[in-house]
Amino acid sequence: MDVDRFAQDTAVEALGEGRYHGRIDPGWAVIDGAAPNGGYLMALAARAMRDPVPQHPDPVTLTAHFLAPPVVGDVEVDVEVLRSGRRHSTLAATVSQAGRPKVRLLGAFGDLASAEGPTRVDRQPPELPPLDTCIDFTAEHERRAEAGGYPPPPIAMRFDHRMPSAVLGWTRGEPSGRGHIGGYLRWRDGAPMDTLGLLVVADCYPPAVFDAGLGDVAWVPTIELTVQVRKRPAPGYLAGWFTTEAVTDGYLEEDGQVWDADGDLVVLSRQLALAARPRA
Amino acid sequence: MDVDRFAQDTAVEALGEGRYHGRIDPGWAVIDGAAPNGGYLMALAARAMRDPVPQHPDPVTLTAHFLAPPVVGDVEVDVEVLRSGRRHSTLAATVSQAGRPKVRLLGAFGDLASAEGPTRVDRQPPELPPLDTCIDFTAEHERRAEAGGYPPPPIAMRFDHRMPSAVLGWTRGEPSGRGHIGGYLRWRDGAPMDTLGLLVVADCYPPAVFDAGLGDVAWVPTIELTVQVRKRPAPGYLAGWFTTEAVTDGYLEEDGQVWDADGDLVVLSRQLALAARPRA
Repeated sequence: MDVDRFAQDTAVEALGEGRYHGRIDPGWAVIDGAAPNGGYLMALAARAMRDPVPQHPDPVTLTAHFLAPPVVGDVEVDVEVLRSGRRHSTLAATVSQAGRPKVRLLGAFGDLASAEGPTRVDRQPPELPPLDTCIDFTAEHERRAEAGGYPPPPIAMRFDHRMPSAVLGWTRGEPSGRGHIGGYLRWRDGAPMDTLGLLVVADCYPPAVFDAGLGDVAWVPTIELTVQVRKRPAPGYLAGWFTTEAVTDGYLEEDGQVWDADGDLVVLSRQLALAARPRA
Repeated sequence: MDVDRFAQDTAVEALGEGRYHGRIDPGWAVIDGAAPNGGYLMALAARAMRDPVPQHPDPVTLTAHFLAPPVVGDVEVDVEVLRSGRRHSTLAATVSQAGRPKVRLLGAFGDLASAEGPTRVDRQPPELPPLDTCIDFTAEHERRAEAGGYPPPPIAMRFDHRMPSAVLGWTRGEPSGRGHIGGYLRWRDGAPMDTLGLLVVADCYPPAVFDAGLGDVAWVPTIELTVQVRKRPAPGYLAGWFTTEAVTDGYLEEDGQVWDADGDLVVLSRQLALAARPRA
């Protein structure tokens, strides 16, 4: 591993009085040259938010509202510690560019390494086919681009994505109609996955609603994303599974579950988004 | 109907400069004389939050973090409009008592009466038995109290609760082990249910984890509650269903779905809470 790209691209520098400086890297955009991924913005903000509470490094539940699309370049993160208790600290943050707020966050941070209490998980990991039968989605993007297609989505290049062919029918014009997406994934550069990286994982797939067969849904802007992180992930591939099961008057949720290589639940996520029609 | 108790007990008065005054009524406590219900606090705050954006009266997604237990009596709500667009306004709020923050909120409000877009719901309403075979949970509480038992939880008295016997096994020392709770419900005083009332509905049942059979879980403090409201509810009984499916090191989610009498999904909710052991 030459460089931990995620750590580098979410680094923040304390400017004093709860203010931090960071930089939005173009490598995390959803479309080449366009808006950075929401989970990446959350992770950058979360790195600033946890700075004043080093005893509580893990975002146990973090909510982001996306106010305006940020652009590549400098950002400021203003962090406010609302409460710091024995087990959790609660913080608010605003990500701004040139004085304009772009993302607002509210979250509770804790220390998952020292969490204690009952455990019982009735949820099941996704039933994925064996890893070696999955499509290398990252390599697939590169092949298409080399063959003269669109440039790959930059964020897809940050991951080693192995996806079942069955969840990619929509890319061939054949959505399953179920509104599912997921697969195995890890950082492509081999960097360790931590609880901030999981915030990106919770938002890194194409929208599950693309597999729902709803017709002319062109883009899916996120209004709000909440990520519960339950555990620091074990090394190895994660298994992620995202579903949209209720589209009502254009509003939709996308629910995510992420499991680590030890078979433990590491993330529960939910976002509210809009099923937007193509712009005229 | 003599009085719309919910509207009365969540009323706020504008004090100017984004500040509101309200009053926590004892009738919404979870235990007689103790902490008010989290959903009730959210609803009171939401009434202040929507005041500056009358074009956007419905909380389409609202997140609350509970910082410290409030007490019955006066509260101040400080509201900040973060963004007001055509379709949504995003607001933050702090509920304080005597200058101490008790609840912090972040949410997007819209107008669900004018929402337009695709609709497809793959989720199913709960399979509840017929209403007339359900237990009148409210009357049951009153009978027990009259027979010399504990006073009923005040919040239970605000609803007309009709619950399947099968979800109340834990009250008889026989949890089903599945971590489910729910039933039919409406305001007991016959008041109309609106999208602010749904915030209370999303948090009004005893914890689903009491049905999980985990043993010595004594109380379940909520860290964070996020409620997506999808529709203004039709008149009649609502059907609510709440499940806890992943308890990890003491952290648990409670996922809720609420359906109206027309069979439409009106709420998706999720909270992060702690499965706390009895205090020594």
